[in-house]
Parts: sequence; structure tokens; C-alpha cells
Amino acid sequence: MSVEARQGRLSVVGLGPGDPSCLTAEARDALAAADAIYGYGPYLDRLPPRSGQMRYASDNRQEILRAQAALRHATDGAAVAVVSGGDPGVFAMAATICEVVETGPDSWRAVDIAIVPGVTAMLAVAARVGAPLGHDFCALSLSDNLKPWDLIERRIDAVAGAGFVIALYNPTSHARPWQLGAAFDRLRRCLPAPTPVVFGRAVGRMDEDIMVTTLAEAPSARADMATLIIVGSAETRIVARPGRLPLVYTPRTHQCASA
Amino acid sequence: MSVEARQGRLSVVGLGPGDPSCLTAEARDALAAADAIYGYGPYLDRLPPRSGQMRYASDNRQEILRAQAALRHATDGAAVAVVSGGDPGVFAMAATICEVVETGPDSWRAVDIAIVPGVTAMLAVAARVGAPLGHDFCALSLSDNLKPWDLIERRIDAVAGAGFVIALYNPTSHARPWQLGAAFDRLRRCLPAPTPVVFGRAVGRMDEDIMVTTLAEAPSARADMATLIIVGSAETRIVARPGRLPLVYTPRTHQCASA
Repeated sequence: MSVEARQGRLSVVGLGPGDPSCLTAEARDALAAADAIYGYGPYLDRLPPRSGQMRYASDNRQEILRAQAALRHATDGAAVAVVSGGDPGVFAMAATICEVVETGPDSWRAVDIAIVPGVTAMLAVAARVGAPLGHDFCALSLSDNLKPWDLIERRIDAVAGAGFVIALYNPTSHARPWQLGAAFDRLRRCLPAPTPVVFGRAVGRMDEDIMVTTLAEAPSARADMATLIIVGSAETRIVARPGRLPLVYTPRTHQCASA
Repeated sequence: MSVEARQGRLSVVGLGPGDPSCLTAEARDALAAADAIYGYGPYLDRLPPRSGQMRYASDNRQEILRAQAALRHATDGAAVAVVSGGDPGVFAMAATICEVVETGPDSWRAVDIAIVPGVTAMLAVAARVGAPLGHDFCALSLSDNLKPWDLIERRIDAVAGAGFVIALYNPTSHARPWQLGAAFDRLRRCLPAPTPVVFGRAVGRMDEDIMVTTLAEAPSARADMATLIIVGSAETRIVARPGRLPLVYTPRTHQCASA
């Protein structure tokens, strides 16, 4: 079959939180079928090498260039995979692929694109401690690289005031050292001091680190780029257990009719 | 080994959206290791039978009784699994298990509990159309069985006004026929008419049904109990593609500084 006659295919594959056991069968199959895999280097390093399969590593600030290269490669007739940690649709590569399709040549709109979902970080961290996302919740990126900080503040006020549990993605980085502390200060204005807070990183990996604390004591310096933070609502509860991490959960039934 | 000496274990396992290919390896292994599986009948029906493994089906309004029975069984020394569709931590059994542990006998706090995350419905539906959850978003249950309707209205106003994409869980049921229409009416007050809306049900199953529409035209009668609805923000975009479903995505970069 000539290259011209082959139809290319682009899979955008979620790797889950990191441990290969968190990959879905669909994701594993999409990776096995790929002629070429594009992604952030550390994500590619998680994948066992396969003979004949090309790997293209790029920096995590090169998303647009990576998406363009992958689409170009797919239009040449190859089966191409782009990988994201967690779920590709949550603050990750799927939106970048869509953006590049919208602004790129018409031929890119003809590419067969499949997004393969995965377990996003907030689900993995929540599972480690119980069910803090058991009722209404939101996912909010603290990165002010791509949106203004005052919008982030308004979003924090809106969801905390309305009783949503909040999962904070991208809480900090070398270039954004003060934002998480500012977010905690803002949250302390409208949520009670004992509100449960969970710090989680590298779930399922050797360096997994989970901490359950309260909003009053939440140490912003504990977080790094790979940390996901869950801030409970006034409804979220901590259940102590002898010799184990406490359970943290948000009940399905709303207790405070006045909230 | 005597029953008294065996330590019981309770796994709360997410089955993902329905297709067995969406199960993680960790979930598959937890199910294979279980002596007994508890769950809503239709979820149990998805699992291939295994010799010697007991199945306990119950109605989807029997969560508390199911959780109590599973914990009791685990304290007898068995490896017990409780299954949820999607992710067990999102409007599902993990919160019920935690609640029952908190209110039950002390011995239940000693049970080895593992929550095994899965791909929740909003991630599965989002993946089918692109990346509508590509930026800040929330998950909101429209069920007013467990919280008052006026709180749901306030939460809709808060998140729509602050620019979050909204995933609506439990949009309707025979006993709750008007709530989704009322939610759409409320959303139309603060979001533009062309705001993209996605209806998705039974992703990966034979009866999968995905529809991309706008807030102006969103037909609440189209939804049933198994439907997940994603309502975009003012930033969410639709990219037409010849011969394919359009892509729907929310860009990583915020465009409207005034939003």
C-alpha cells in the first residue's frame, strides 16, 4: 500500500497517574499500534521501548510545536500517538491538538483523531484518601501563564463560596512561586479553618507522597509542579483510622441547608 | 488459615464508562482477586463470570445497605470488591463506603480499603468530541434528592458566571423530569446562545450516543439517567470537520480578559 493511500491516524493517549497499572486497555492498545509517539520526555520514558516505533521527545513548553509535528506526521499516513500524563483532555494535549487543527491547513481537519481518556490526577489523589470529590467539585489551574491572576481569584471566590470541592492543578513552579500561598489565603477568607486539604503527588510511583491536612495548616511550600491539591468544602469530613491514613470524603447528602 | 486470622480487604473499583477496554489494569486485577463482588445489577452484568466468585446485585437506591454488607463481608476476612460505573469517587460508591465506615462499628475502621480509580463519564464524553474540559471546569449533580434545588441553582449561577465549563451528572430521571430544562433556562441567562453543549451516553457501548449542539437549542428531552452533559464556557469552540463530528474544545489560553 502506498504512503499516499494510507490514512493517517492520530491518537491522543492518557497515561493515567504514572503507574503502568493505571493505563486502560484502550490506551495500551493505542500505544502498541503507533508507528511514532510524541510527548514530553518523562512521559515517553514511562513507556517500554518497542522495536520499529519512533519516539519524539519535547519539552513541556513545546505543546504547539509537538501537536503540529504529530499532525503533519499523521497526514503522511502514519499511526501517530501523542501522550499526556493523566487524562489528555484535562489541562493537557487534547486541547492543543484541537487548537492546532482549527488554525492549521484544511487537510488536518480530515485526520482521524481519537482521544483516549485516562485517570486524571485529581481522581488518582482522591482515590488514595477516600472520596473527597464525592459531591460537586471543580478543577482549576493555578497557572497564570495563560490567564490573568485576577480571573483565577474570581474563580476561587466563586467556587469556594458556592460549596464546591476544589482540585488545584499546576499549583506552583519555579516561575510561579507565590500563587499557591495566595490561593490558600483567599480560600481561608471563606472556608472554615478545619476544612480538609489533601496534597498528592506521583500516585502509584516510587516517590508517591500523600498528605492530609487542614486549610489552616496547609503548607504551600510542600507542593511542586507535580502536586495536585484538593481543598474540601464545608461538608468534607475526615475519618480517623488507627494505623492508617484518615479517610477524607464529601458526603453525597448535603447537610448544611444554609450553605 | 483460620477466618479470624485472615485480614479482609475492600476494593472500591471504577469500571470506567462501560466498554471493558476502558478498565485499567489495576481495576481488572482487583476484580480478579475478589472473593465477592457487590454492585448495581447492570454493572455486575458487564463483568465476565469467574468460578467461585460470588456476586451480590442490588438496586441503585440501596447504596448504604450495599456498603454495609460489603464491609461486614470484608471484616469476615474476605477479599470484597464493590463496583461503580466510571470512577467510584465521583457521585458514586466510594463516598458511601466512607460514610458507612464513619458511622459503623469501630472494627470497620480497621478494614484495608483501596479505592481503584476509573475514567469518569465526563472524561469519556469529552474525549469523544475533543477537549471541552481543556480548561477550568466543574462537575455538578443535578439530582435534588440529596440537596435542595435552590442550592443547585446557586451553584449553576456561580460557575457559569465565573467561566467554568460545566459537566452535569444525573441530569434527569423519571422522578426528576423538569430539572434539566430549568438548568438550561438558568444557564441561558448568563451564557451566550451559541455556547457549545455536548450530550453523551453509553460511551464505548453498543448504544453510544453523542450529540453536539448549542445552549440555545439544547433539547433537555434528549437526556436520560445515563446521559452526561457538558456545557461549554464563553471560550469553548466548535471546529467543523468534513464527514466527521465537529471538534469541541476549550483553549488553554484565556481570550476574553473581561470574562
